Amino acid sequence: MRAELIFTGTELLLGQTLNTNAQYLGRNLSNLGIEVTLHTTVGDDWDRMAAVFRQALGRSDIIITTGGLGPTSDDLTKETIAEVLGLPMVLHEESLASIKQYFIVRNNEMPASNIKQAYFPKGAEVLPNPCGTAPGAIIKTDNKKIVIILPGPPWELEAIYENSLLPFLSSLPVRGDVTRFTTFKLTGIREENVQELLNGLDGFSNPEISYTASPGEVHVRISAHAKTSAEADGLIKPLAGEVKRRLKPYIFAIDNEKIENVIGELLKQKKLSIAVAESCTAGLVESRLCDIPGCSNYLKGGIVCYSRMAKEKILNIDSEILEKHGAVSEWAAVSMAQNVRRLLDADLGLAVTGEAGPTTSESKPIGLVYIALATPGGTICREYKMPGRRTAIRQGAVNASFKMIRHYLQGI
Amino acid sequence: MRAELIFTGTELLLGQTLNTNAQYLGRNLSNLGIEVTLHTTVGDDWDRMAAVFRQALGRSDIIITTGGLGPTSDDLTKETIAEVLGLPMVLHEESLASIKQYFIVRNNEMPASNIKQAYFPKGAEVLPNPCGTAPGAIIKTDNKKIVIILPGPPWELEAIYENSLLPFLSSLPVRGDVTRFTTFKLTGIREENVQELLNGLDGFSNPEISYTASPGEVHVRISAHAKTSAEADGLIKPLAGEVKRRLKPYIFAIDNEKIENVIGELLKQKKLSIAVAESCTAGLVESRLCDIPGCSNYLKGGIVCYSRMAKEKILNIDSEILEKHGAVSEWAAVSMAQNVRRLLDADLGLAVTGEAGPTTSESKPIGLVYIALATPGGTICREYKMPGRRTAIRQGAVNASFKMIRHYLQGI
Repeated sequence: MRAELIFTGTELLLGQTLNTNAQYLGRNLSNLGIEVTLHTTVGDDWDRMAAVFRQALGRSDIIITTGGLGPTSDDLTKETIAEVLGLPMVLHEESLASIKQYFIVRNNEMPASNIKQAYFPKGAEVLPNPCGTAPGAIIKTDNKKIVIILPGPPWELEAIYENSLLPFLSSLPVRGDVTRFTTFKLTGIREENVQELLNGLDGFSNPEISYTASPGEVHVRISAHAKTSAEADGLIKPLAGEVKRRLKPYIFAIDNEKIENVIGELLKQKKLSIAVAESCTAGLVESRLCDIPGCSNYLKGGIVCYSRMAKEKILNIDSEILEKHGAVSEWAAVSMAQNVRRLLDADLGLAVTGEAGPTTSESKPIGLVYIALATPGGTICREYKMPGRRTAIRQGAVNASFKMIRHYLQGI
Repeated sequence: MRAELIFTGTELLLGQTLNTNAQYLGRNLSNLGIEVTLHTTVGDDWDRMAAVFRQALGRSDIIITTGGLGPTSDDLTKETIAEVLGLPMVLHEESLASIKQYFIVRNNEMPASNIKQAYFPKGAEVLPNPCGTAPGAIIKTDNKKIVIILPGPPWELEAIYENSLLPFLSSLPVRGDVTRFTTFKLTGIREENVQELLNGLDGFSNPEISYTASPGEVHVRISAHAKTSAEADGLIKPLAGEVKRRLKPYIFAIDNEKIENVIGELLKQKKLSIAVAESCTAGLVESRLCDIPGCSNYLKGGIVCYSRMAKEKILNIDSEILEKHGAVSEWAAVSMAQNVRRLLDADLGLAVTGEAGPTTSESKPIGLVYIALATPGGTICREYKMPGRRTAIRQGAVNASFKMIRHYLQGI
């Protein structure tokens, strides 16, 4: 089963938007055993889009397009595909009703331009959009090709994929091998050192280990291919066990789990609240915790004490500690964690202090980070030497903070 | 001058790697007035790669490839291009010497497989790689096409681009049309409503207006093409002036300027400091301000007062205000801004409070946000109805906060 993906949107060609849909779809399709052979990105231009669709229809079984379903005049995807396939555009009443409803619940009237979003090439099966006004569609052509049309905004595309496209694709007969993966996400370690720790395990092709680094994290991926998912998973399992054993202190998340959701669930289960004091991360930890709806159940608030004055005046950190040990010290971290816990009357107090660079005020090495967690049973503090530059150090500190909270919550 | 980009690597098709090179090259080439008309991503497969190169050579003036320059057997880019162009592969002695040197400074011997990285299609101009062992190359074909070969790792690609490719591309005589554009970034308004405000201005092809939405922002791009940059800019200017006039209250940034850098510069110039109190954004404003190295010059710190207790206990917000008007109110926002300014002894105090959803605690509409800025001359407060869901509302509130700070600083 050969698939190709067509991303439409001049903003992608101009580099105004990072194409994360390519990664999302590539990952999900290969998990289903569908081979993606080509990606094409084309601007909002009728003739170029039509040329790309025609080529794709000539060589692939499944064609998935993203983008160009908006209400504005430069949104051309459905219209171009209809022309290439020789189909008229017809109104889909149910979609029109749900688009109108989308505006009603937001106390607005539907602008006239949005009607366009309820039109589809004749015969298309419409994929409802639970997050926006641009439904997707599946078109089966006379010569057994499948054309799938999805909106560009990632959260809309992902919702449609999960709700209605995944069941459809899973029902297709599989041809060829299935590839499966598992990924360990690490922080506080360099890619080269990860490779050293896995000495003897990598360099094989099935299962295969590969590495990717991004600011503040290293991902170790184990992949295997076989005739069935179960067989591929069977190849991955023993190797994954050994990798996990060797890398354990550095793993903060596995596969696509979001660590802030894991922590949120654990805090809710255990009925514990948390408060945060951040220096070098300056709000990053708290803003990630707050990404989760319902976080007000456990998130009491926090202090960004970027300046010494904020540390002393709001968090009541003893000026002697700052004088003697510096703001980037185990002493300061512990004191910050304990004081923010007390100040906000929380069960747990997390503190992060570190040197993110590019310059250093206390002549401490750039990348030195202390993270402390004050709990009802005492305070834990750890020192990290985060690799990389400013962004990597700050993101690494966020990941390490979440790892510490997670380990504590899973241990009690 | 039409360019197309070819990204090679099966890891891109499988979604194992996010293609950030597409954005980097798209942005940089369009800044040079080079029109990128197509991106193609193809796996490490000789026949498919050759087919993609042949098509590209048939339709574009400049072809840029990334990836496939490594030492392993699945690295095929240079070899495939040499075959398609009918050129032999020849050893480039200087590259071999510098690859050997790369290993020597790391106390290693060069593995035999790396010799491959010093071979190039005959006649290629080699682009040294200051960060790795895979040099890039420029090949000029007999029929005046330019083929540029770059490695896949973003930091290597970017280093080569900055050091040697940018000077080369800048020196090219412009052939055909130059495309130029300007982008206005808006917040606090829906895409549909932007289009309504620009009624009568869009729907033309040169200059052309187009729209993109992402959580918390809408981008309006005006593009024009002409024989010279000056001519294209001349087409853009009057339209951009009118667009700016109509959308002024919503614009927070123009083109690729980062608003946090703009604010940081203004604060430094005017020798003013700032403190932040955040409720629904929960650290996002502060963490963005802290992305800028040297922010400790103006960022005093902040309070994330996600809970009512934090608002009362740390920020000393009058409980009567919260009782009578609610935490999402002009009263609360003004009080938060004034109190955080005083508490942290800052020149400016910014406060954000709003209903990000998905549920609402005070029976106020989701998307309602108040932003206040306390200044030496008094406090400004504005009400926003942010479109979208949780992430969009929070990102919109961050953008609107930066817009308010910027407008204030530019007005004094």
